[in-house]
Amino acid sequence: MLDPASGRAQAHGAHRWRLGLVGLGNVGQGVLRILRESRTAISQRYGADLVVTAVAELGGGAVDPHGLDLDALLTELPAGRPVAGLPRVGRPGLTGRDLVESATPDILLEATPVNLRDAEPALTTVTRALELGVHVVLANKAPLALAYRKLRPMGHLTHERCLAVGAREPGAQLRFSACVGGALPVVNVGLRDLAASRITRFEGVLNGTSQSILRAIEAGLDYQTALADAQRRGIAEADPSLDVGGGDAACKLVIVANAVLGADVTVSDVRIRGIEGMSPSDVRAAALEGRRIVPLCTAEPTPQGCRLSVEPSPLDLDHPLARLSADEMGAVFYTATVDRLTLVSLEPGALPASAAMLRDVLDITERTRPLRRHSEA
Amino acid sequence: MLDPASGRAQAHGAHRWRLGLVGLGNVGQGVLRILRESRTAISQRYGADLVVTAVAELGGGAVDPHGLDLDALLTELPAGRPVAGLPRVGRPGLTGRDLVESATPDILLEATPVNLRDAEPALTTVTRALELGVHVVLANKAPLALAYRKLRPMGHLTHERCLAVGAREPGAQLRFSACVGGALPVVNVGLRDLAASRITRFEGVLNGTSQSILRAIEAGLDYQTALADAQRRGIAEADPSLDVGGGDAACKLVIVANAVLGADVTVSDVRIRGIEGMSPSDVRAAALEGRRIVPLCTAEPTPQGCRLSVEPSPLDLDHPLARLSADEMGAVFYTATVDRLTLVSLEPGALPASAAMLRDVLDITERTRPLRRHSEA
Repeated sequence: MLDPASGRAQAHGAHRWRLGLVGLGNVGQGVLRILRESRTAISQRYGADLVVTAVAELGGGAVDPHGLDLDALLTELPAGRPVAGLPRVGRPGLTGRDLVESATPDILLEATPVNLRDAEPALTTVTRALELGVHVVLANKAPLALAYRKLRPMGHLTHERCLAVGAREPGAQLRFSACVGGALPVVNVGLRDLAASRITRFEGVLNGTSQSILRAIEAGLDYQTALADAQRRGIAEADPSLDVGGGDAACKLVIVANAVLGADVTVSDVRIRGIEGMSPSDVRAAALEGRRIVPLCTAEPTPQGCRLSVEPSPLDLDHPLARLSADEMGAVFYTATVDRLTLVSLEPGALPASAAMLRDVLDITERTRPLRRHSEA
Repeated sequence: MLDPASGRAQAHGAHRWRLGLVGLGNVGQGVLRILRESRTAISQRYGADLVVTAVAELGGGAVDPHGLDLDALLTELPAGRPVAGLPRVGRPGLTGRDLVESATPDILLEATPVNLRDAEPALTTVTRALELGVHVVLANKAPLALAYRKLRPMGHLTHERCLAVGAREPGAQLRFSACVGGALPVVNVGLRDLAASRITRFEGVLNGTSQSILRAIEAGLDYQTALADAQRRGIAEADPSLDVGGGDAACKLVIVANAVLGADVTVSDVRIRGIEGMSPSDVRAAALEGRRIVPLCTAEPTPQGCRLSVEPSPLDLDHPLARLSADEMGAVFYTATVDRLTLVSLEPGALPASAAMLRDVLDITERTRPLRRHSEA
C-alpha cells in the first residue's frame, strides 16, 4: 500500500497516526527532522506510521490530510519563510486552536515558546485538544507549571494517571516527559521505574545555563563574564533572567513534584534563589571545604506537604550532582528501596527535546489506537 | 469489600491480580516485604490489587487462592523453615511448573538462582507459563541469556515487542527489567525513553562486585586481598568466578543487545576478559595517564552485527563511568539525537531488584487486565 505523502510503501500492518504540530522553532523543527529521517524505521519497529498532517506557528500554518511534505517544511523554516506561504497547503492565520478544531489530529504536539504569565496560547490549544479527545504531547512547560490543577481533572490527563490506567480508559492522554530536562527521563523514571519504590527525596540540576555559568565561575570567571560567554556560545538567552534567576528550574521542579511525587504545588511554593549573586570567592570557599556549588533543585515529601527549593548549594564532591560536567543536567531519586538512582544527560541543542516528544508519541500509540473518527480507510 | 487475605478493605475499583512467586531467596523475599508494606498504596495509586496466591522454592511451596498470609511467609523464610511446612497452605514437592499449571496465577514472578548451564528449572517454568498465557516477570537472567531466541518467537514475548504492541494484542507478556542491574532501568530507558533515538553505542558497568574490587585495588590492595575483603563484606560470593570472570556482566550485556539493540547474540559472541589479573600497578599506570580502569561492558551496532565486549578498560576521568563510586553500577547510551544519557544506581542488597520486579508487574497491569478465566467474582 502506497503512502500518498511519501510515495513509499507503508510498513505492513502499521497504524497511521495523524500528528498536529504547533510551534515550529528548534524543538518543532527537530521533530520534523527526526520524522523525515526515521519515519520508516519507527513504523517498522513500533507499528506506528507517524504522519504530520498539520503544523502551525505564529501567523499561520499548513494542512494536508494526506501528510505534509516534510522536505518542503524543512526548506522553508530554516530560511525563515512562513509555512503559511506554501502553495496549496498553506493556511495564513491558522492558530493552534484552529489546527485542533479543523485538522483534528490524533495527537497534538505543543512546542511553542514558554510564557509563564498565562501559558497562552498553549493553554487554550491544549485544553481544546483534550476536550475534543485529541492526545497531547507537550514540550512547552508553561501549561503544566501554571495550570496543572486545571488540567489534572480533565478526565485521565495526568502522566501518573495515564500510566496508571494505560489503555484501559478511553479519552485523550497527556504526556510531557520533554518538559523536565529534554531527553533526561526524569518524569518517566520517577513514575514508572520507581513505581514500586517510595520516593523520599528528589534532587536535580535542571537548568543547563545555570550549571554552565557556575562551572565557569569555578574556573575563575566572574559572573558577568561567565554570563556573557554563555550568551556568546548560545547557551544563555539575551534575557537570561528565567534561567539564572531559577524560575525555569522551579517550573520543572513543580512538574516533578505534582506528577511524580503526587503533590499539589505551584511555582509560588518554591523557595527560589538564583545564581546572579555568585562570585568566584563563594565557589572557592566551598571548594576549600571539599564541596562544589551547583544550581540545585530539591523536593522532599513531608507530612506537611512537599518542601521545594531552587538555590545554589554546596555538595560533597562524591555527590552524583557534584560530578556533573559543565554541559550536563542530572537528577537523583532517593527511595525507600533503591538508595539512590541518578540520571545524567549531555544534550547539546534542541534535538533531544524533539526526540523526547516523539518517545511520548510512541508511548501513546503503544497504549491506544488512533481515534476511529479520525482514521482513514 | 473486605479482602479475605488481609481483612482490610480492598481499594475501590482496583483489579485483583494473582501473583505466583517462584524462588524465595533475597529477591523473592524482598518482593513479599514490599507487598506487605505497600500493597494498599500500590492498589490506590495504580488500581492493581496485588495478591500473592502461590509461592514455590526448592522442595515445595504454598498455595492459597484467596491470598497467602505474607506475615506467615516472612516469619518462616528468614528462619530457614520451608514454606511447604505451613499448615493448610503448604504444598510439599510443589515445583515452579506445578505452580504455573495448578495455581494458574495471572503473573508469574521468577527469582530462582541463575543457572548458566541450561537455565533450568526456570526455563521450563517460564516456557510453560507463556504457553498457558500467564504473564512472566523475570529476575533470573539465565532464561534470557541462554534462550532468548527460543522465547522471542513465543508470541509477543520480547520486551521490545511488548512495548511496541502494548495492550493491543492478547496473550502473555514477558518483562525482565530487573535482570540488568536490578533497579538500574537500563532496558526500560533504552527501549522506551530512547524510542525515537538511534542508539549508536552502549557502555555499562554492570557487575557491582568487579567494580568494588577494582576500586579497592585502586586504593592499594592486591587482587586477592580485595577479593577476600569483598567476600567478607558479602559483596562477592564464595565462588566469585561468574562475577570477577566477566560472565555475569556478559549475560546482562547480551540481554541489552538482544532486547534494546535488536541484536541476535549469545554469550559466546562476547569478548570477555575478567578482572582476576589486575594488579595495583596496572591500575596505577592508568592513573598516571589520567585514566581509571573500570570493568566495562560495550555493545556497538555495526553493519556486520553487534560488537560486544566485557573487559577492564581505562577511561578518561571525566567519563561518566569513571566517576562511579565503588558501590555504584552505571550505564551509558550514546545516540544520534541525545549525545549521552547516563544512568547510575547505588543499590545495596537485593531489595532494589525486588522493586524492579514489581515495576514490571505494574507495567503489565497497566497494559492488560487479569485474564478472565482467572478472575474471581
